[in-house]
Amino acid sequence: MLKIEFPIIILNYKNYSQTIGEKGLKLTKIAEEVSLELGANIAVCPQTTDIRMISNTVEIPVLSQHVDSNSPGSFTGNNLLETIVESGAIGTLINHSEHRLILSDIEKIVKKSKEHDFFTCICSNNFQTSKAAAVMSPDAVAMEPPELIGGDVSVTTKPDLVSKTISAIQDINPFTRPLVGAGVSKANDVTEALKLGAQGVLLASGFVKAKDPKKALEEMAIALINVK
Amino acid sequence: MLKIEFPIIILNYKNYSQTIGEKGLKLTKIAEEVSLELGANIAVCPQTTDIRMISNTVEIPVLSQHVDSNSPGSFTGNNLLETIVESGAIGTLINHSEHRLILSDIEKIVKKSKEHDFFTCICSNNFQTSKAAAVMSPDAVAMEPPELIGGDVSVTTKPDLVSKTISAIQDINPFTRPLVGAGVSKANDVTEALKLGAQGVLLASGFVKAKDPKKALEEMAIALINVK
Amino acid sequence: MLKIEFPIIILNYKNYSQTIGEKGLKLTKIAEEVSLELGANIAVCPQTTDIRMISNTVEIPVLSQHVDSNSPGSFTGNNLLETIVESGAIGTLINHSEHRLILSDIEKIVKKSKEHDFFTCICSNNFQTSKAAAVMSPDAVAMEPPELIGGDVSVTTKPDLVSKTISAIQDINPFTRPLVGAGVSKANDVTEALKLGAQGVLLASGFVKAKDPKKALEEMAIALINVK
Amino acid sequence: MLKIEFPIIILNYKNYSQTIGEKGLKLTKIAEEVSLELGANIAVCPQTTDIRMISNTVEIPVLSQHVDSNSPGSFTGNNLLETIVESGAIGTLINHSEHRLILSDIEKIVKKSKEHDFFTCICSNNFQTSKAAAVMSPDAVAMEPPELIGGDVSVTTKPDLVSKTISAIQDINPFTRPLVGAGVSKANDVTEALKLGAQGVLLASGFVKAKDPKKALEEMAIALINVK
Repeated sequence: MLKIEFPIIILNYKNYSQTIGEKGLKLTKIAEEVSLELGANIAVCPQTTDIRMISNTVEIPVLSQHVDSNSPGSFTGNNLLETIVESGAIGTLINHSEHRLILSDIEKIVKKSKEHDFFTCICSNNFQTSKAAAVMSPDAVAMEPPELIGGDVSVTTKPDLVSKTISAIQDINPFTRPLVGAGVSKANDVTEALKLGAQGVLLASGFVKAKDPKKALEEMAIALINVK
Repeated sequence: MLKIEFPIIILNYKNYSQTIGEKGLKLTKIAEEVSLELGANIAVCPQTTDIRMISNTVEIPVLSQHVDSNSPGSFTGNNLLETIVESGAIGTLINHSEHRLILSDIEKIVKKSKEHDFFTCICSNNFQTSKAAAVMSPDAVAMEPPELIGGDVSVTTKPDLVSKTISAIQDINPFTRPLVGAGVSKANDVTEALKLGAQGVLLASGFVKAKDPKKALEEMAIALINVK
Repeated sequence: MLKIEFPIIILNYKNYSQTIGEKGLKLTKIAEEVSLELGANIAVCPQTTDIRMISNTVEIPVLSQHVDSNSPGSFTGNNLLETIVESGAIGTLINHSEHRLILSDIEKIVKKSKEHDFFTCICSNNFQTSKAAAVMSPDAVAMEPPELIGGDVSVTTKPDLVSKTISAIQDINPFTRPLVGAGVSKANDVTEALKLGAQGVLLASGFVKAKDPKKALEEMAIALINVK
Repeated sequence: MLKIEFPIIILNYKNYSQTIGEKGLKLTKIAEEVSLELGANIAVCPQTTDIRMISNTVEIPVLSQHVDSNSPGSFTGNNLLETIVESGAIGTLINHSEHRLILSDIEKIVKKSKEHDFFTCICSNNFQTSKAAAVMSPDAVAMEPPELIGGDVSVTTKPDLVSKTISAIQDINPFTRPLVGAGVSKANDVTEALKLGAQGVLLASGFVKAKDPKKALEEMAIALINVK
């Protein structure tokens, strides 16, 4: 079975029109190609409806963008962890800035995920919430300042915040991998993030909306494997 | 392309463990068999993650249990209408009692659905909200008293409420089909619903959790085609 | 007891810093002065925490900006209708664009309010949702296009939308008063709204953030009483 | 100015009918009497609409049951921290099990509260979320197992959970006071809680719905002051 390994680039497809169904599959094949050619760890987060088709087709890890906290039962329209597991995803983002969750649900999802050996990455918005996230022992915490998400300015332009947050996450839980995201779109953003101690980056538009997604991803993947 | 025709039995799979992935596919093949053998209109609402696999495999209409109101863009973990359309669903439930929506989102989803020729069934909880739902011109309104959902007592034990609601829906919008749900699990529940003017029923556990789902559905389907 | 009479200007204080506590009381005394001097119907919607102090002090109707749908019981931090009634408010806005509610809660609040003889004004965002609101028989529906709220362009710059919506509300329920809001800040906006059939306007920043709130309100109040 | 001191009994009035307006004031006078007679620290959390009237009348600390995370501005129907401060409350519960908040809002409220020297007590549901809460440095964390809230079985029947949680909170942040709640209604519950290391208890029905609230509170207050 595929596993999440580090350092890693996690690609969030969001609800971008460029990622719907067959288009998302095509983008994922590009990500797979880059991953295999360069030996770089790359995971994708397709839209929920596309998880099964995509995870059945490619050989790179597929994560969900979100799961709901409920267990199987009388819930309508929720994205059930058990079904997402069965569909071939091997983990999930939790609490993305575009899908915030109440604290008790974040904790419940992390706990449930462990029972399914399902990778968890809690997204957080600042220093304090990154620490709160780390306390709950997810596999990773991805700190993303909301004001930079979807923009041109990389999170790495805040090196003090990034390195302080990474240290705090590691002090709290050495098994939780610190990631960063927001505004990451260039090789240099990846290099800087890793130099500051991040074990990976989370990005969306920098890949999905790139003029040439393959080239953009290749450059970032090369940066990823070149930082020691 | 498949179309929703009336009278109809709509089967909501909710997040029941009996409907996850391959199990949901198997249940759908049963529904398809019953539908084709008896010439009864039956649609299924699988879990979102399963829509594509199921709609690719069977010849009966597949609906989503829910869609989010947003358009393509920077939204993470939402169930995008466009992706659900691309995955093969031909319509959706909206505002199920286990997934209530704000009024403006209900209206937005109905409007967006029309642009995609996507069938809409707004779920409502009583007489007044059924009328409010009908005003927004969905293809169907399914009135389900919340206190009866998932139980043994059928909505048809409230004949006055049912017939009053159906009349009101039809007065407001003759093109909106009135459906009922909650506690529907037996042939007689279907017969009664149709005699009261409903053009179909919405049910979940009565099929999914039946000892013998095929037999349970067959009996309800026979009732459906026998009411004139 | 004070009653809501028409035509009316309803002033929503929102969470503006200009309306906190004593400042809100002072603004309300200005509104009272204008109302009494000109014989114009003016109601205010202070912050929840200020309702009791304000309604105890002035002789114009005080409305709540929002109430929660629950009945008395184990609910923490909710704004209970019964307590708001006891505090001296005589009605409430429901479903303001900054506090949208699920359809079933809107209906529940309207129903509960009738039992307490409590005035209800459902806010809506467009033609369709205004009709859905009117179906539930509130005392008033205030249509406010969200894109104009808080801005300089009045809802009355969309006369076709306004008059079409007002007609529809009245066709559905002759006892529900049609109001409009969004961008209303000048006498002429009030005049136009009433000429289009509105029986009042809902505004916030046009009063609260006016350079001279008294003057701004006086001009609008004069416009209100001068339209026949 | 009144201050929160420890050990303390915090009384949450919820939306109970027994606490609406004048009734809430009367209950608070009882709490004040008990507090002053016995020299026991007691704080009350009235309904938001009642905060000003109650804090103006009594000499014991008044807390809010909830505050929203937004700053002053275009927000309708929210319970603004600044207004609650102005009304005389000196702190707030955050994230009560009946009013859960997203993680980033919890953190934002704690941070904003510090700027206003406003006491914060984050409610949590288990060991892990209590630690996450403590990380954000509120003045107190009140751990309340949701399944025991409102019932007859005290949280102190889970001594291992309670003492483990209290230790963890103190390890993370020695300035955050550990409290417990859920099912607390008798003197012995208070004694047990304090012996396990809690610096106070949070309760609602045990006071509000007691046959004789004064007697019930007196017994618990005596227990509070007698534990060393």
